[in-house]
Amino acid sequence: MLQTRLLEATPGAHAYPLLIKRLLLSGGRYERTREIVYRDQVRLNYPQLIERIARLANVLSQAGVKAGDTVAVMDWDSHRYLECMFAIPMIGAVVHTINVRLSPEQILYTMNHAEDRLVLVNSEFVGLYQALAGQLTTVDKTILLSDEPAPAAELPGLLGEYEQLLAAASPHYDFPDFDENSVATTFYTTGTTGSPKGVYFSHRQLVLHTLAEAAVLGGLDSVRLMGSDDVYMPITPMFHVHAWGIPYVATLLGLKQVYPGRYEPQMLLRLWRDEGVTFSHCVPTILQMLLNCLAAQGEDFNGWKIIIGGSALNRALYDAARARGIQLTAAYGMSETCPLIACAHLNEELLASGEDEQISARLKAGVAVPLVEAAIVDGQGRFLAADGQTQGELVLRAPWLSAGYYRQPEQSRELWEGGWLHTGDVATLDAMGFIDIRDRIKDVIKSGGEWLSSLALEDLISRHPAVREVAVVGIADAQWGERPFALLVLHEGQHLDAQALEAHLQPFVEQGQINSWAIPRQIAVVAEIPKTSVGKLDKKRIRLDVAQWQASDSGFLSTL
Amino acid sequence: MLQTRLLEATPGAHAYPLLIKRLLLSGGRYERTREIVYRDQVRLNYPQLIERIARLANVLSQAGVKAGDTVAVMDWDSHRYLECMFAIPMIGAVVHTINVRLSPEQILYTMNHAEDRLVLVNSEFVGLYQALAGQLTTVDKTILLSDEPAPAAELPGLLGEYEQLLAAASPHYDFPDFDENSVATTFYTTGTTGSPKGVYFSHRQLVLHTLAEAAVLGGLDSVRLMGSDDVYMPITPMFHVHAWGIPYVATLLGLKQVYPGRYEPQMLLRLWRDEGVTFSHCVPTILQMLLNCLAAQGEDFNGWKIIIGGSALNRALYDAARARGIQLTAAYGMSETCPLIACAHLNEELLASGEDEQISARLKAGVAVPLVEAAIVDGQGRFLAADGQTQGELVLRAPWLSAGYYRQPEQSRELWEGGWLHTGDVATLDAMGFIDIRDRIKDVIKSGGEWLSSLALEDLISRHPAVREVAVVGIADAQWGERPFALLVLHEGQHLDAQALEAHLQPFVEQGQINSWAIPRQIAVVAEIPKTSVGKLDKKRIRLDVAQWQASDSGFLSTL
Repeated sequence: MLQTRLLEATPGAHAYPLLIKRLLLSGGRYERTREIVYRDQVRLNYPQLIERIARLANVLSQAGVKAGDTVAVMDWDSHRYLECMFAIPMIGAVVHTINVRLSPEQILYTMNHAEDRLVLVNSEFVGLYQALAGQLTTVDKTILLSDEPAPAAELPGLLGEYEQLLAAASPHYDFPDFDENSVATTFYTTGTTGSPKGVYFSHRQLVLHTLAEAAVLGGLDSVRLMGSDDVYMPITPMFHVHAWGIPYVATLLGLKQVYPGRYEPQMLLRLWRDEGVTFSHCVPTILQMLLNCLAAQGEDFNGWKIIIGGSALNRALYDAARARGIQLTAAYGMSETCPLIACAHLNEELLASGEDEQISARLKAGVAVPLVEAAIVDGQGRFLAADGQTQGELVLRAPWLSAGYYRQPEQSRELWEGGWLHTGDVATLDAMGFIDIRDRIKDVIKSGGEWLSSLALEDLISRHPAVREVAVVGIADAQWGERPFALLVLHEGQHLDAQALEAHLQPFVEQGQINSWAIPRQIAVVAEIPKTSVGKLDKKRIRLDVAQWQASDSGFLSTL
Repeated sequence: MLQTRLLEATPGAHAYPLLIKRLLLSGGRYERTREIVYRDQVRLNYPQLIERIARLANVLSQAGVKAGDTVAVMDWDSHRYLECMFAIPMIGAVVHTINVRLSPEQILYTMNHAEDRLVLVNSEFVGLYQALAGQLTTVDKTILLSDEPAPAAELPGLLGEYEQLLAAASPHYDFPDFDENSVATTFYTTGTTGSPKGVYFSHRQLVLHTLAEAAVLGGLDSVRLMGSDDVYMPITPMFHVHAWGIPYVATLLGLKQVYPGRYEPQMLLRLWRDEGVTFSHCVPTILQMLLNCLAAQGEDFNGWKIIIGGSALNRALYDAARARGIQLTAAYGMSETCPLIACAHLNEELLASGEDEQISARLKAGVAVPLVEAAIVDGQGRFLAADGQTQGELVLRAPWLSAGYYRQPEQSRELWEGGWLHTGDVATLDAMGFIDIRDRIKDVIKSGGEWLSSLALEDLISRHPAVREVAVVGIADAQWGERPFALLVLHEGQHLDAQALEAHLQPFVEQGQINSWAIPRQIAVVAEIPKTSVGKLDKKRIRLDVAQWQASDSGFLSTL
């Protein structure tokens, strides 16, 4: 380490740790009238929010929650969730945001693995929670969350209903200072293989992520994506990477915030209209669902700015959203990255370029946001050229990356191989720093010494008029290492075999878009493609199915 | 300290220090075409800026500059200054930004006290520098900065001219990681008493200040004050608190930047017009000068956003600037605070209020920006009420306050008395968090157990039509402790005595704006009021003058 001149420790000059409480007490103190809205049921102003967070801190402390303990939340998006995202870390404890969409077995696994001590559980999940209760190894206290008058329920160590507990608690809490490297939040990422893995973030990481995200959303694009006069409503759940950290940004800047509970299109649209929502974020499938739903027909969404992430944004969805007045901006991140890594804002060159070039840039993952270093590496960890062509695994350094997976040293070492966080994504980087995600590294097809992108191949195959849905996976091949295999769902009354697909793809070979060995030698037409719990193609399952079909020689496959 | 759960040290999971190099490599890599402009002489794009910073780092390293050394700059605002603000800290050294407006003796004092090793000096200051050279105790190398072909000059350890040295240096430098608490910058604050005092800021402090400032300017106001498509030109010198840190923000976001050299109204206006400047910052006197200068007459400044700080913004200047199309926002800070502490943006309540109330808020110091804690205390350090009425010394905590004064332990302890940074400003705080600066604590008049604001009294006296300029100081009084004394400059042909002034102030007493003992018992009419080198009223000198007049009973004073 370089011998620099270090700050003198002046007697009295306080160290000033970066703590989550600082995010609450800026805009929160200053904005007295803007509201935190929960469905059509609750409206709070910021002074009330701050007071309720102090009350919740007292409830938790009196329940015996100590610094370092883990407190879990099972709720849909709500003002209560926002209160937990502040109060729990602010007393030095760790908030575990439970993914309520996981299977009961997975939820049980994560609660025991995270060593949850106290659970705040929405009455909607009481049945599930009761079923798990006998197998919980560390939980000994429960607080019930309910939109209605609290139902009676037998729950482990039930302290009472949230609102009643808050009402009885003191509205004052002197939130202490402590080490900024204290863990503040944790949650589990499922990926497509193995047990859920727990990522975790410190106060310092969340404060830095919040400041950088505020700077990006406020200052980096040619228009302001989010400012204090915007009205914010998440459409990515708060249990998923803290709703991309945006509730912290919104609170820092004192925005009006709208929490929709469970995501029902009718409710989302009503809140959007009645509360004047101008800023949201979601994954492409949710946006597609919103645009398609009956209640949204004829609605003019002009002025609604939406950040899109989680999976690739395609041109059709981009065009459809733009046609309805929505301003879409792609962003990139993952559970391990807190999540913001890149945002697809346009620089001066792109702003001066043609519309197609601009849209093509806007569909990419974007450029690394301030403080983030992005690079691509080969299988040996060697850095590859940022030429917009060379593909490699995207690796990252940033001040807000998960230090590993909780109590999984082997996976943590793999995640941080060579001192960079390995995303598991295959990408190109161009000279402007634009990241273009080509595939998951597990889904890329290593064929004849080259990497074929399953995503790119799916895109080309999906252009055949008979194809409704397609998944491409690599299967073992003695000569090539791997070869692509296509699983298809066709539109009603349509037919397609391997020969017809080859004829469809041949022109792309001639144009140089793909190599000839990218053409699948085998395909299968099915009624439905297996998907994961969050709606992604389940390629692990598909590969197992294909291996079985090949072994049984069932006549199910169409071969060139 | 609370026993929280700390981040695990995962093997491979890099610590990621907050270093100034991270500010350069975000926008700087992404924005390839936007320019850094120096007067009408130099235009660089960002890739060129980055390359020149690497070249400068090589020049300095080859000259023997080591991590921890101090390197001084004597220049007007320029692209070179921007390069120094990055390259010097990025090699682990400390950049000393010399205030070229200080007296030669003060400059000499600061250079020896800061232990400058190498000096980058503009040819304009060569004469001054040569005169000091014999008394410099630590400097042994010099680099000459020049807009013209380099003049021949005898300078201590002259390495050569900046452009020639850069041209000969390697364009590659592998900037190392090091401790984020390393000192990056230093400069001297003169105040009104004693020797200049050296404040200093670490990499961590500057990175956090930059992120927070970007968030404030981008997201916090009801309009975006600064974003990536703005064109930035400082009108507060880069040697003064790093031009309020805004060159770092502009570089982070990849803005076009315009550096005007020495501040000449003609050049400032020409650059504003020709380069399309939309964002600047300055002190009130500079704005006044700009608005009044001949070249600006008839100019429509619509779209120019200016942050005003350094001293109080008065209503007349606010109205004059607004009438010319300038959008003014007040901010508050000082050398010891990096500087941004507060910004006068309006919350929802104020946005819904009448124009007078809005303007009155906009003239105040503002509300503490994210991560800053502000409070007011009495002489014993007890916290006072935030009621908009109670006056106390403004004290601060924030992640970017100077840890003290370099090698001045006694003054450092005073600065940080009780664990808060003491601003020396008397202020009120209201329930919304608005800070209203009433006076410097040294200038406040302690009379009959109350604090009279010299600023408030000056404001009331200045409303008398005969008064052109006024300074109010406290003078010793056996009965009251102190009583106010007014020093006046009158408009030509006007007369005013203590009785007439009393008649002017009596209505304000009746309205309850001031107490009767706020009326000066003694005044003096003079041709000119003493000022400091930066144009502030020199109240220390005024108090000395008054004491002398009183002792000599010169008949110079008018007494009630």
